[in-house]
Amino acid sequence: MPYEIPAIVQDRVSPRAREYLKKIEHFVETECIPADEVYEAQISKDPALRWKSYPPVIDELKKKARSQGLWNLFLSKTHYSEGAGFTNLEYGLMAEILGRCHVASEAMNCSAPDTGNMEVLAKYGDAAQKKRWLEPLLDGRIRSAFLMTERFAASSDARNINMRMREDGNDLVLNGTKWWSSGACDPRCAVYIVMCKSEKNTSSDPFKQQSVVLVPAGTPGVTVVRALSVFGYDDAPHGHAEVRFENVRVPKSNLVLGEGRGFEIIQGRLGPGRIHHCMRSIGAAERALDHMIARVNDPARQTFGKPISEHGTIRTWIAESRIAIDSCRLVVLNAADKIDRNDAKAALKEIAMAKIVVPRTVCDILDKAIQAHGAGGVCQDFPLARMYAGLRTLRIADGPDEVHLAQMGRNENARAAEVTARLQRQEARRDELFRLYKIEGRSQL
Amino acid sequence: MPYEIPAIVQDRVSPRAREYLKKIEHFVETECIPADEVYEAQISKDPALRWKSYPPVIDELKKKARSQGLWNLFLSKTHYSEGAGFTNLEYGLMAEILGRCHVASEAMNCSAPDTGNMEVLAKYGDAAQKKRWLEPLLDGRIRSAFLMTERFAASSDARNINMRMREDGNDLVLNGTKWWSSGACDPRCAVYIVMCKSEKNTSSDPFKQQSVVLVPAGTPGVTVVRALSVFGYDDAPHGHAEVRFENVRVPKSNLVLGEGRGFEIIQGRLGPGRIHHCMRSIGAAERALDHMIARVNDPARQTFGKPISEHGTIRTWIAESRIAIDSCRLVVLNAADKIDRNDAKAALKEIAMAKIVVPRTVCDILDKAIQAHGAGGVCQDFPLARMYAGLRTLRIADGPDEVHLAQMGRNENARAAEVTARLQRQEARRDELFRLYKIEGRSQL
Amino acid sequence: MPYEIPAIVQDRVSPRAREYLKKIEHFVETECIPADEVYEAQISKDPALRWKSYPPVIDELKKKARSQGLWNLFLSKTHYSEGAGFTNLEYGLMAEILGRCHVASEAMNCSAPDTGNMEVLAKYGDAAQKKRWLEPLLDGRIRSAFLMTERFAASSDARNINMRMREDGNDLVLNGTKWWSSGACDPRCAVYIVMCKSEKNTSSDPFKQQSVVLVPAGTPGVTVVRALSVFGYDDAPHGHAEVRFENVRVPKSNLVLGEGRGFEIIQGRLGPGRIHHCMRSIGAAERALDHMIARVNDPARQTFGKPISEHGTIRTWIAESRIAIDSCRLVVLNAADKIDRNDAKAALKEIAMAKIVVPRTVCDILDKAIQAHGAGGVCQDFPLARMYAGLRTLRIADGPDEVHLAQMGRNENARAAEVTARLQRQEARRDELFRLYKIEGRSQL
Amino acid sequence: MPYEIPAIVQDRVSPRAREYLKKIEHFVETECIPADEVYEAQISKDPALRWKSYPPVIDELKKKARSQGLWNLFLSKTHYSEGAGFTNLEYGLMAEILGRCHVASEAMNCSAPDTGNMEVLAKYGDAAQKKRWLEPLLDGRIRSAFLMTERFAASSDARNINMRMREDGNDLVLNGTKWWSSGACDPRCAVYIVMCKSEKNTSSDPFKQQSVVLVPAGTPGVTVVRALSVFGYDDAPHGHAEVRFENVRVPKSNLVLGEGRGFEIIQGRLGPGRIHHCMRSIGAAERALDHMIARVNDPARQTFGKPISEHGTIRTWIAESRIAIDSCRLVVLNAADKIDRNDAKAALKEIAMAKIVVPRTVCDILDKAIQAHGAGGVCQDFPLARMYAGLRTLRIADGPDEVHLAQMGRNENARAAEVTARLQRQEARRDELFRLYKIEGRSQL
Repeated sequence: MPYEIPAIVQDRVSPRAREYLKKIEHFVETECIPADEVYEAQISKDPALRWKSYPPVIDELKKKARSQGLWNLFLSKTHYSEGAGFTNLEYGLMAEILGRCHVASEAMNCSAPDTGNMEVLAKYGDAAQKKRWLEPLLDGRIRSAFLMTERFAASSDARNINMRMREDGNDLVLNGTKWWSSGACDPRCAVYIVMCKSEKNTSSDPFKQQSVVLVPAGTPGVTVVRALSVFGYDDAPHGHAEVRFENVRVPKSNLVLGEGRGFEIIQGRLGPGRIHHCMRSIGAAERALDHMIARVNDPARQTFGKPISEHGTIRTWIAESRIAIDSCRLVVLNAADKIDRNDAKAALKEIAMAKIVVPRTVCDILDKAIQAHGAGGVCQDFPLARMYAGLRTLRIADGPDEVHLAQMGRNENARAAEVTARLQRQEARRDELFRLYKIEGRSQL
Repeated sequence: MPYEIPAIVQDRVSPRAREYLKKIEHFVETECIPADEVYEAQISKDPALRWKSYPPVIDELKKKARSQGLWNLFLSKTHYSEGAGFTNLEYGLMAEILGRCHVASEAMNCSAPDTGNMEVLAKYGDAAQKKRWLEPLLDGRIRSAFLMTERFAASSDARNINMRMREDGNDLVLNGTKWWSSGACDPRCAVYIVMCKSEKNTSSDPFKQQSVVLVPAGTPGVTVVRALSVFGYDDAPHGHAEVRFENVRVPKSNLVLGEGRGFEIIQGRLGPGRIHHCMRSIGAAERALDHMIARVNDPARQTFGKPISEHGTIRTWIAESRIAIDSCRLVVLNAADKIDRNDAKAALKEIAMAKIVVPRTVCDILDKAIQAHGAGGVCQDFPLARMYAGLRTLRIADGPDEVHLAQMGRNENARAAEVTARLQRQEARRDELFRLYKIEGRSQL
Repeated sequence: MPYEIPAIVQDRVSPRAREYLKKIEHFVETECIPADEVYEAQISKDPALRWKSYPPVIDELKKKARSQGLWNLFLSKTHYSEGAGFTNLEYGLMAEILGRCHVASEAMNCSAPDTGNMEVLAKYGDAAQKKRWLEPLLDGRIRSAFLMTERFAASSDARNINMRMREDGNDLVLNGTKWWSSGACDPRCAVYIVMCKSEKNTSSDPFKQQSVVLVPAGTPGVTVVRALSVFGYDDAPHGHAEVRFENVRVPKSNLVLGEGRGFEIIQGRLGPGRIHHCMRSIGAAERALDHMIARVNDPARQTFGKPISEHGTIRTWIAESRIAIDSCRLVVLNAADKIDRNDAKAALKEIAMAKIVVPRTVCDILDKAIQAHGAGGVCQDFPLARMYAGLRTLRIADGPDEVHLAQMGRNENARAAEVTARLQRQEARRDELFRLYKIEGRSQL
Repeated sequence: MPYEIPAIVQDRVSPRAREYLKKIEHFVETECIPADEVYEAQISKDPALRWKSYPPVIDELKKKARSQGLWNLFLSKTHYSEGAGFTNLEYGLMAEILGRCHVASEAMNCSAPDTGNMEVLAKYGDAAQKKRWLEPLLDGRIRSAFLMTERFAASSDARNINMRMREDGNDLVLNGTKWWSSGACDPRCAVYIVMCKSEKNTSSDPFKQQSVVLVPAGTPGVTVVRALSVFGYDDAPHGHAEVRFENVRVPKSNLVLGEGRGFEIIQGRLGPGRIHHCMRSIGAAERALDHMIARVNDPARQTFGKPISEHGTIRTWIAESRIAIDSCRLVVLNAADKIDRNDAKAALKEIAMAKIVVPRTVCDILDKAIQAHGAGGVCQDFPLARMYAGLRTLRIADGPDEVHLAQMGRNENARAAEVTARLQRQEARRDELFRLYKIEGRSQL
């Protein structure tokens, strides 16, 4: 089993978390991974049924997982009373194991976007909202979607959101179109958490003009227009929806936290969510490496007269993958640990690093694993191409890498004045030493 | 229009070819590219019909193309009397334009694997074979498949082929399984060109044990088992089939060229085919670059307060893409020109270079174009993700990059004795000069 | 011998050029390469003499080269009556062979910056200037330097030049400091070609404020302040000088072409010079690949129980180097050919591509060759580290890669309006087809 | 100040170590960095004196450092009674700060190869050896060299060592040649720690045929043949020597630990040494990033009408450098922590990762910093080119990257049997589920 807790965090993982890690790993390896293809096969290919049903195997897995206490592990102990009591670092290690497999997160009620949505409700929802939405979500009876991204705006910057919200008596009326609303195609999806913008100018602060509203699925005026594909995958039954809102009306009590608080809510949602995504991605990379190793040691496949595993290029891929995975894990755990020690805001830089570096590194590992499988790698016989499609999308979701790099570059560059002053002090001292030692200086032939 | 013939081949392109290039470009840009999404939409989503029909729009396009003389342009003038009269270099330039678009190659009856199969029949088929199969293929009435790759063998080395062929009276009997038989799912596919291995030992030479046999679609014992997907795309109606042969019986007259000549046939097929693939890939890259440029100049999309096209990173992507495309084009045209001046065997090294360098370079450009489109880039709204899936597969088809690199490394390394001797002569002369000029040599503090 | 003219330019190389290529290659391989270490050893290590002498072996080589007609090959036939009569493409192929070796260019009077300076004088100098400077340069009796770069300006943009020029009677008076004045440390250097800026405002056009002035070495007020090193190499006797001008006075007749014509002169100088640099770089890469191959086949060196050349990683390096070298050569030759067919201005894009892509590619090859040599690779026992230092600097000289990439990105992005309009026309036609075929369009679940 | 202890190791750094870190940083930034150019300027350029003197400034710095208790910090608390009492992790953080600067390590008596040599003597030396060599080394009165690498062998594998040792009465007699004996050119170098091979067959185990012998500098028969350069740097006064041994005779009491124990000694020496090198490299990267930031914010340098720091490409370099540095630091600290928790042998994998990933990453950062400085970056005006030369060599020293990657690939690939069995169990379970849920399986069209 490749799994080993890195030296540097040994002291940060409680005995209880270690016990859970073992149970989770056993459940994922023996129950969930074998069920991945079953899940896939049980999705209807009939276009009339494809988005109206879901694979029965998942209910079985959920039952089993819950009976072992492997349920809702994600709510970190520091922030939510409903939580399972683990730190972000501990749950990070668990999320990695979940990420080895397609169905494991859902089986343990730890799958996005429900996790982030439950965090929002737990942290910002009022009692009625919790009662109506958080409870069945925690219970795994319904699912949910988070509607943020818009097609015709650079919506990674929340200020660009176009979905309009206006008050009308005791109601809120929404108009606009969202896309990449992941999970909104699922027949079990019962609520949309919608980011919108007040029509009236609530505030001159551009970060205080957004609001988060809870919209029950099936509310009149809501149309799930179509499912977007990721490469050629439609990710049924989950799906990535384009959703149109035409005069959609919900009571004001469906507003979360208050008007103009949308930005605040989304900020609180992102940090731990990115840690989860990153750690699951690392689990995907471990699975890919497993497959790569198994493949290149298949005695039936020889090229140039020797097993593929003896070719230097492949050996290097294996070594590089191991290094890349282990490095990424440390980067994410360090970010998780900083959230645990402080909070997500303090760990902004560390979280951004993880968000940038992990998806692209894992994409690269998946790409090598695909290549090692030949034509098998791109098709349905291995989980590799599908994982690639998902990971590739992570380099875009929540803002493309380049936006995060630009931001991080700007922050790091803010040291300029301090650095320049320091270098100048050092040069002054150097010139002093030059005089002291009677050195003529730089300009001599 | 990005299209311009590179300086270095200006003298190698005839006025007639230039005239065709213009007509092709006009037809592709105004008729074919707009039809890509129509073609996609006309493929049935009903699983019962998906592999039993094909999009009507293609027949319209074929009619139009043929009426303009844009038909069967691929057969190079030096090798086939049936040919359109262009050199490999000239058709290469045409193939690039075809490659900008999904439907253009088929519209002009220039799509793989039919092109390679027609080359095989034109070059190696006997009169009866030509009459029965080449004529309707050239006429665009039927389609064909080439069955080479096998699931449980490293079949990029033809010696590893497992499909068995035995004689039985006047018949040949085939047993085995092929996969990645592209086009074999198409309802119009009428013939399989099958690479198989004689059961009896025809020759001690491992390169003379393979034979090529023509098997009509629908022959008893043939089962198209399933369609393989490429990153989630099933590429209907074309498809990539797994095909099972159980005691499939065809007359001996269906053998091409003669028993044990399979390796010779496949070698002759590969060279120009790789040039076509590479040039089409370059066309795909040009299309992707067009989309990238259009996207980043969309006035509605601004980040950090300026149009995306003004961000330095994007500018660099655009420049790097232009350099990469233009470099790749020269590499492929040089290989095509060497085929024209000599033959495919003489151009082995140049063809291999193109085969290695083009798909990976174009993958990289497509990946950047996807990234520049945000979430739009991975979905069905742009041709990018689909082109990526196809190009990524080219890095594996006909042997993964690594096999070609290893081969090329071995060939280049064969210079070792000559190089070593030359360096030693130079060192001897150096030492002579050291003595002449009374230099003590290297070993002095 | 690795040398072979690419297929694609076979028709562009005259029999006379082919004959010269053979003679040059023989001279370089048998006389020049063995002399490289002799040249190095003959440079005085005594700081008092280091910049006052030069290696005697070079005079012997010059004599030999000249006696074989291998002299001043660089002046292209289209532009200079003094030229050797070769095209830029032909001389490019020759320059590649020169580049395999440190001393060959100088031995055949084809070394920078003299070549570019002779081009300037041949093209823009008046009769007296030619008599005094061009003749002895063509004769190999003196050397020269080109003084452009300045320490405290982003001087890759000529508009930022700070060196001041003012008129005083019949004289011009120069003040300022230049650095990276390559060759100015050489005791044979007799003239500086100096880019300066008029103190009085000669023109409102920022590209017409610069002038080129000829300053004899030793003119009062000129101080060669120090030699700059390149990764620890001082490149004696040539050297890269920092040069101070304090009220340096030369007659007005030393002005080249006329006041305010500096930008025009430098533009004319750059194109072919970049081709030469690139082709020499490719020669360096070929030499490095030779050394890599010899090294990894040394029977005395085995790791993991087999010769290094049998390790897959090394094989891949060799193959990748071959591909990279051959690709780069095509890129440069295409640019040279475009200059020959039109002129340097028409070939701006092609020259920029070569300038960007070649140095970084060759750096990468050199880096791999160094790595293949272990510790030997970084020291004086092989030419690799030294070539690396030179090539690395080429990524900065005449403007860093990033400036050229930004410029090329801007130019390519200028297609935006045309591309956008074309894509919109295609979308309109697509929608027309959608209506014609009664397709509902993109928005359907 | 860029320095901040990563979240994940906050608990592993004692208050005393934190206090030292502050003092070290202050001393390095205010005293050592300004002295770097002084040290360089004080090295004699006269070839007769270059290797017979050393820069006076270093003695001043040593005095100052020692007076502040900043002395011999490297000996880790777990292994040596002579140590300063810090863990490997804590000293790692200190070494990073030392690495920002050329002279700091020597100033605090923490420079290689003395550190490794002192570790050898402290761990394996007998009382007399400690008295004669360890004491003056710990006192900073002498320096030392480690003679391992040989010119004509792949000596990264100690079994290939050719230096012969034979017994003669009470003496040991050594014959052979070493190179890259770093520090052996220094006039203060008083002892060579020499790896040699017994002439008589001491053991059939190829790892028990090497011995380590202490040879005083100046012993008859020892010739320091020449100094090797690294790129163009000779690294005087330290230097990298080629050393010839001709019948060099030392008493048997100069043998360390015993005959045939050489491999054991060298293994013990390598682990912590690699941690030190890596952490110093990270310090070099931080210094380079400081310089890059200062440079691109220099108001005098603008390109394309804006400060260089506002160009997206540069911003990305800064962000990528920050990410790369912080990731590398975690990788090395994790390895150091594993040594502290267990020992170097247990941390083999983690140390190898650091050894592979850090030098190449830092090379890349240095390369970008050089590029950001234009021509200034490659010359003596900034520490960048020199640091690059040193870091580039680290990718070769102690075995090239490729050897370590191959080894790590082999170790990781050893999981093949376990992985294959696990995947097969999962497939069996999948097939079971297929039967249970009546799924036909993979083979269906």
